[in-house]
Amino acid sequence: MARDPDQTKARLLTAATAEFAEFGIAGGRIDRIAKAAGVNKQMIYAYFGSKDDLFDAVFNVHVGTSMALVDFDATDLPGYAGRLFDRFADDPAALRLSVWYRLERPRGPGLQAVVAVNRVRLERLAQAQRDGAVPDHFDPVALLSLIQAIATSWESMNPEFGAAAPTDRGYRRGAVVDAVRHLLATNQSVGKEGQS
Amino acid sequence: MARDPDQTKARLLTAATAEFAEFGIAGGRIDRIAKAAGVNKQMIYAYFGSKDDLFDAVFNVHVGTSMALVDFDATDLPGYAGRLFDRFADDPAALRLSVWYRLERPRGPGLQAVVAVNRVRLERLAQAQRDGAVPDHFDPVALLSLIQAIATSWESMNPEFGAAAPTDRGYRRGAVVDAVRHLLATNQSVGKEGQS
Repeated sequence: MARDPDQTKARLLTAATAEFAEFGIAGGRIDRIAKAAGVNKQMIYAYFGSKDDLFDAVFNVHVGTSMALVDFDATDLPGYAGRLFDRFADDPAALRLSVWYRLERPRGPGLQAVVAVNRVRLERLAQAQRDGAVPDHFDPVALLSLIQAIATSWESMNPEFGAAAPTDRGYRRGAVVDAVRHLLATNQSVGKEGQS
Repeated sequence: MARDPDQTKARLLTAATAEFAEFGIAGGRIDRIAKAAGVNKQMIYAYFGSKDDLFDAVFNVHVGTSMALVDFDATDLPGYAGRLFDRFADDPAALRLSVWYRLERPRGPGLQAVVAVNRVRLERLAQAQRDGAVPDHFDPVALLSLIQAIATSWESMNPEFGAAAPTDRGYRRGAVVDAVRHLLATNQSVGKEGQS
C-alpha cells in the first residue's frame, strides 16, 4: 500500500477517537478501529504501539485541542465556564474521553501538559484574588474544581432525567454562566436564602 | 456445596461491586469476581445471568443504598448537597459505579426507581419555589443538575491536579455546601463581582 502515512495516521486517530469515546479503553476494540479506518490492524500496532498507547495518542490530541479552543481568563470566570461548556457541547466525544481517562487512568504521573496548565491557572487565580479582581471566599483550587463541574453539569446528569432535562443549548449554557456568577457574588444574604 | 445461597449471592455482590467500580462493565471480569468471592464462575450465571445482569444487580443495590442514606430536602439544598458529598466520600465505589453506568448505559429505559425519584424531586423543588422557600432564578431541573455536579466536583477533577487538590474532607465538604448557598443567594451584585 503506497498510502501517505500521515493520512493513514489521521484516519486511524479519527476512528480511534470515536471508538474510545463510545467504549472506553477496556471496551474499545482495535479491530473495529482498523475496520472503520480501512486500515490493516497490524498498521495500528506499527504506528502507535499498544491499545493503551493509541488511547494516549487520542487523548493527547483531545487535550491539545481543548487548550487551544478554551481560553482561560481568571478575571472572567463566567466567560471561561461558557467556553468550556461550548467545547463539550460542540464535541461530546471530548468530554466522554476525559471521563474515561479519569476512570481508567486514575493513577500514574498524568499528562505533563495538563499538570502545567493546572499550575498556571491556579497561580493566575491566586493573583487575580490578590489584585481584588476575583473575590476570595473560595480558594483557587476550589474555584477551578467547582467551575469545571458546573460547566459539565448537564452532561453529568443521570440518564433517567430523560425528557425532564432541557436540551436547548442556549438554556443550558445560560444556567452554567449564571451559576458561576452566583458562585462569585459576594453578598450578605448567602446562607440565609432558601433555608428553612 | 451446601452453602447458603443468600450468603453466596451477598459475597458475589460484594466482589462484583469492587470489580465493576474499578473496571466498569466492559472491563470487569467474571472470573476475577468468582475468584474474589470464592465461588464457581458457573454459579454467577446461575444466580444472576449475564455480566450485564450482574452489573444491573450491583447498580440497583447501590441506587437503593443512596436513596436510603441521602435524604432530599427541597427547603435545605445546601444540607442535601452535603449529604450527597458524604455519601460518595464514605463510599467512593458508589460514585464510580454511577459514572460507569452513565458512560456505558447511556440509552435504554433507565431504572424506574431513579425516574420516579427524579420526578418527585423536581415536583418538590417546584413547590418549594411556589411557596417562596427556594428562590426561582434557576429552574428545578437546573438546580438539581448543578447541585449534583457541585456535590461531586472534587471527585470529577482531572487526575493531574494531584497534590494541588486538598484532600481534607471537611474542607471539601465546606466548599460544596458554600457553593450551593451561593447558587441560591439572591442579590443585586451577581454578574458584577469578579468581572473585568
